[in-house]
Amino acid sequence: MSENRWLTGDEQRAWRAYIAMEHVLGRHLHQHMQREFELSDSDFEILVTLSEADGARMRAVELGEVTQWEKSRLSHHLSRMATRGLVSREPAEGRYPSIVLTDAGRAALAACAPANAARVRELFIDVIGPGRLELLREIADDVVAAVEHHQRTNCTLRP
Amino acid sequence: MSENRWLTGDEQRAWRAYIAMEHVLGRHLHQHMQREFELSDSDFEILVTLSEADGARMRAVELGEVTQWEKSRLSHHLSRMATRGLVSREPAEGRYPSIVLTDAGRAALAACAPANAARVRELFIDVIGPGRLELLREIADDVVAAVEHHQRTNCTLRP
Repeated sequence: MSENRWLTGDEQRAWRAYIAMEHVLGRHLHQHMQREFELSDSDFEILVTLSEADGARMRAVELGEVTQWEKSRLSHHLSRMATRGLVSREPAEGRYPSIVLTDAGRAALAACAPANAARVRELFIDVIGPGRLELLREIADDVVAAVEHHQRTNCTLRP
Repeated sequence: MSENRWLTGDEQRAWRAYIAMEHVLGRHLHQHMQREFELSDSDFEILVTLSEADGARMRAVELGEVTQWEKSRLSHHLSRMATRGLVSREPAEGRYPSIVLTDAGRAALAACAPANAARVRELFIDVIGPGRLELLREIADDVVAAVEHHQRTNCTLRP
């Protein structure tokens, strides 16, 4: 393995700082949402995704494409959310039912979204400031594009 | 809930781009590590943390502080890693054993670390470039400091 595969000190500091931001901020937001609203980050991701879909409904396979969760994780999680009344399964054309956001799911999202947005503003948006925020968006878009290009062109690990 | 708690269009685009980077890059790195080296991201985090500790050993409570995992998750995960021979529990002063990196754990880390570092370089470091990387490090440090300050001063949700 050639040495230039390793990261320099500066590169490693930047990578570790990014990972620390991801862990520390994510955990803080998730803990608040769980304890104040009894929603996990997985629940929240499904609720947001459904709420933005046409008719607040999607096929499970479409939800899988958007969230990129593994099939078994998605299936188990949707069952638990259905038991709690946050989503329901409804017959649709073809073999597979649609996953539909229920009134209770919409209410749960409406209850927690403002508090979550306020925390994102206080601890991320306002800390970073408008100029750096625009640059962070460019960085993030570039990284996502690079990973997706890599997956399209030379990766055999598609789910 | 007052309107200024919500994010503007630009703010929301930046936040969503950041979340997309976190998901897309993290999933890509974790999938490769799992399929090529049979290590989950949780395994990798424990192995790296232990490898950097004095004597490659830590108390479980110290591991909990560094990783910030919940106690039950940490305990179950360490048991599974011990079964696989990646770590071992050894008697130590006081009531609690130390968690020690085994030779097999060190070998597993040594086997996957270069490939992982090469992916981080290709899809993150080189895509971002040195100037933006330094700025991203500053952003990440500022966000981590803000969350930690918030937790110290007015948060009742400490684990």
